[in-house]
Amino acid sequence: MKKFTRRSFLEFGSFGIAGAGLAFTPKANNNASDTKKLNIAICGLGRYGTYLAEGMETAEYCRVAGIITGTPSKAATWKKKYNIPDKNIYNYQNFDSIATNKDIDLVYVVLPNAMHKEYVIRAAKAGKHVIVEKPMAITAADCREMIDACKKAGVQLAMGYRLHYEPYHIELRRLGQQKIFGNVKIMEASLGYISSNPDEWRVHKALSGGGPLMNLGVYCVQVARYVTGEEPVSVSAQFGPVTNKEIFKEVEESITWQLGFSGGAVCNSTSTYNCGIDRFYAGAEKGSFELSPAISYGPFIGKTSAGPLSFPTINQQQVQCDEISIKILAGEPLPEHIKGEEGLKDMIVLEAIYKSAESGGKKLSIN
Amino acid sequence: MKKFTRRSFLEFGSFGIAGAGLAFTPKANNNASDTKKLNIAICGLGRYGTYLAEGMETAEYCRVAGIITGTPSKAATWKKKYNIPDKNIYNYQNFDSIATNKDIDLVYVVLPNAMHKEYVIRAAKAGKHVIVEKPMAITAADCREMIDACKKAGVQLAMGYRLHYEPYHIELRRLGQQKIFGNVKIMEASLGYISSNPDEWRVHKALSGGGPLMNLGVYCVQVARYVTGEEPVSVSAQFGPVTNKEIFKEVEESITWQLGFSGGAVCNSTSTYNCGIDRFYAGAEKGSFELSPAISYGPFIGKTSAGPLSFPTINQQQVQCDEISIKILAGEPLPEHIKGEEGLKDMIVLEAIYKSAESGGKKLSIN
Repeated sequence: MKKFTRRSFLEFGSFGIAGAGLAFTPKANNNASDTKKLNIAICGLGRYGTYLAEGMETAEYCRVAGIITGTPSKAATWKKKYNIPDKNIYNYQNFDSIATNKDIDLVYVVLPNAMHKEYVIRAAKAGKHVIVEKPMAITAADCREMIDACKKAGVQLAMGYRLHYEPYHIELRRLGQQKIFGNVKIMEASLGYISSNPDEWRVHKALSGGGPLMNLGVYCVQVARYVTGEEPVSVSAQFGPVTNKEIFKEVEESITWQLGFSGGAVCNSTSTYNCGIDRFYAGAEKGSFELSPAISYGPFIGKTSAGPLSFPTINQQQVQCDEISIKILAGEPLPEHIKGEEGLKDMIVLEAIYKSAESGGKKLSIN
Repeated sequence: MKKFTRRSFLEFGSFGIAGAGLAFTPKANNNASDTKKLNIAICGLGRYGTYLAEGMETAEYCRVAGIITGTPSKAATWKKKYNIPDKNIYNYQNFDSIATNKDIDLVYVVLPNAMHKEYVIRAAKAGKHVIVEKPMAITAADCREMIDACKKAGVQLAMGYRLHYEPYHIELRRLGQQKIFGNVKIMEASLGYISSNPDEWRVHKALSGGGPLMNLGVYCVQVARYVTGEEPVSVSAQFGPVTNKEIFKEVEESITWQLGFSGGAVCNSTSTYNCGIDRFYAGAEKGSFELSPAISYGPFIGKTSAGPLSFPTINQQQVQCDEISIKILAGEPLPEHIKGEEGLKDMIVLEAIYKSAESGGKKLSIN
């Protein structure tokens, strides 16, 4: 399948992103050789850190300029692959000295969830802009501290939400918020995969803060929020059974939940580590729209009650990093929907989902 | 789209229904002109009664031989269309005299849900076999009375479950029960349409016994039961908001629920009268299988994680009526999964779903 870069994505003008809330601001001089690139240090060189770096290989507005890792062998591999000078390679002990490194503009925090707070705050205190992966942290209180630290330091804080730049998801948002099929009434949003490695940090509560809800469910909450353009006002949730007791000692194996939105829509969701699932459906007054696969790295398949959806498959990581970098290079504020405050809104919902599930499914108001 | 009759369905031998629990027993002499047909009287000439009669137009083993209706104008139309003699036309007052009519073998009850009990019992007392539409009645206690009445009268009682004979659903059952992709872990089964007529019997509790759960949710419960081959052991349920107060004064507008099965599977479902939805997904240990559309009259679209599913589109009503008729003509007992006891099992689950939703979502055991 053809992969589209940001440039080809922008050149592909036929899929109607106007009005979808995305402001593309290409540089006046769009010649790649002349483009100033934002220098990004990746903090955490796990699987997703690798995907991000690969995405930035074709980026026009940013580059992998530095790394922060606790593993010397990874440092050596990355140094060679991305031609990173020794002075831009940090470990978790000497990380704060990045403050004096003028060759790093932004730190992208891709660590296990529970470490997001510390490293976002340390990066902010070092005067660096920050992108942090989802979920933003493991509590809403932590998210607030992170937002405050970035404000105090005068740096920008972006969420690493790759789907805000993805054409199918831009279309979902347009169809929902512009009520193309009338008011959305029912949504189903589910994401799951099989987790069978007991050593994986995502099944250890101290590192992940929770199970599939934290790592996968956050996408389901996100899509329901941006399709409606509303915040959920009520929640019920139910833990699934533990069928693999070797793996799921600390976090839930699966969870289902229902969000009620202020306009009357309901979203019924599942997140699980015990099987694959990846689907979104919205039923509205005059029709429906859906994706399946829906939330993974794609390629996505979508349709509405009026016919199939067909958009280019983009490199989600490259486009996301480029779009954030354009704003920061221009000294402009980031769009509201990718700021740290957006991560906080999701975390408030995730906390309410856990609270309901822990209470045995009681319907709770979300404040 | 080509419609398959029962005959072409049986001749289409490549889709592996063996072992799926369906025993086809074509008559030794399969020449239509020589085949004895079961004489069926349709009780209730609404929309679905019409679909059933149309299905029987191409049936090989049954015919529309009589009608029971309270509307003289409908009697006249049907008399002409199906060449029904006056002696086989009944109203709700003189219905019991059908007992002496040797030209009627079976009564198919297609009345509003709350009337099923009375007419099934009256038909049984008249010595006629019975097919009753889903949901079987409006309480489990009523279902038990109906089963007892048929046993006492020595007549067979079949549920009008059109999907038990449908090739995609036979395949769902095979994939699930034979664990082709390992144990099923998560199912999503949802069905909904827009109900906007305040005079429709389905939104009046005295006639319908409930809202979308009774009329549509019963299919979602069914599919989850026959995909796992298990009974649910626990349930949580949540009423959706009432967004159309003109229509939904007596029954729920939408409802979500989660069933827990003895083997560890969970089914997360939605039924609604406020938007269209029609999908089934099963995530298992080694793959997945799904239909969308899934539960309506089709045509269905299905796939598994191994590739697309492709089966003929059958006339669901014709095949169902033929298969039940073959058994009754042969004097053989009906298969367990289409007997009245099956309708009772569903009703026990529906009652538990309502009980949980009415308690605010409390997780309940199902006995």
